[in-house]
Amino acid sequence: MNSVAWSLHPQLAKDTVELGDLVLSRVLVIKDANYPWLLVVPRRPGIVEIIDLDEIEQAQLMVEIVRVARALKAVTQCDKLNIAALGNAVPQLHVHVIARRKTDKAWPKPVWGVAEPLDHDFAELDRFMHAMKKKLWVS
Amino acid sequence: MNSVAWSLHPQLAKDTVELGDLVLSRVLVIKDANYPWLLVVPRRPGIVEIIDLDEIEQAQLMVEIVRVARALKAVTQCDKLNIAALGNAVPQLHVHVIARRKTDKAWPKPVWGVAEPLDHDFAELDRFMHAMKKKLWVS
Repeated sequence: MNSVAWSLHPQLAKDTVELGDLVLSRVLVIKDANYPWLLVVPRRPGIVEIIDLDEIEQAQLMVEIVRVARALKAVTQCDKLNIAALGNAVPQLHVHVIARRKTDKAWPKPVWGVAEPLDHDFAELDRFMHAMKKKLWVS
Repeated sequence: MNSVAWSLHPQLAKDTVELGDLVLSRVLVIKDANYPWLLVVPRRPGIVEIIDLDEIEQAQLMVEIVRVARALKAVTQCDKLNIAALGNAVPQLHVHVIARRKTDKAWPKPVWGVAEPLDHDFAELDRFMHAMKKKLWVS
């Protein structure tokens, strides 16, 4: 058992809106309207790398990444999914699940560092989050 | 059963040296001495996304990513692992497993598109591959 409670890293909290919790992970939306961009963050304290999770958690993380990626693809009808655990700037393990379009600002490059974050239109973000929550069965 | 045989995408074949096969995936070394940089490529024809694999293959892919990442961390003593399935340029599903150092050319940015690929020193690559093969139990 972990004696320390998990909490979301302040930088991730600042950069995202909460979508909901799966069994292992919190699912978040990055505040950047350039791309439909989610984070999957295992709610386990002190975890930096996927290899720091135990085997059961690793298997569950894959299940949740796939669940989020399938929902994102269904909702956005994107051309490509980009899935990545980098964490060079923010150490708390977080997996990016990004819907890429051949017309987006960074294509075909990875999204990091290419375009300044763009504010969401509130109504559009609300529709996206509602559709994602429905697909993910989170309320 | 798949009626079409799997083969490595020509671009991936051009950019890599083969390390060996795990149960599901071929493990390759990217020809770029800037970073210890591996690819994990499931040997399944026609697969573009992780969500295209079936559940058993997804679970096995996670097992193999973790196995490769642990070996890479042990061999390189790196500061951070970067793990990513992007595939915007080459459609065949391939997972990057990269050993990052705080002193490498791209840190803290992702590696893609930052530095021109650097030729390996043959003896150094040979030592790295030998150490990786031993850790991965591939001959």
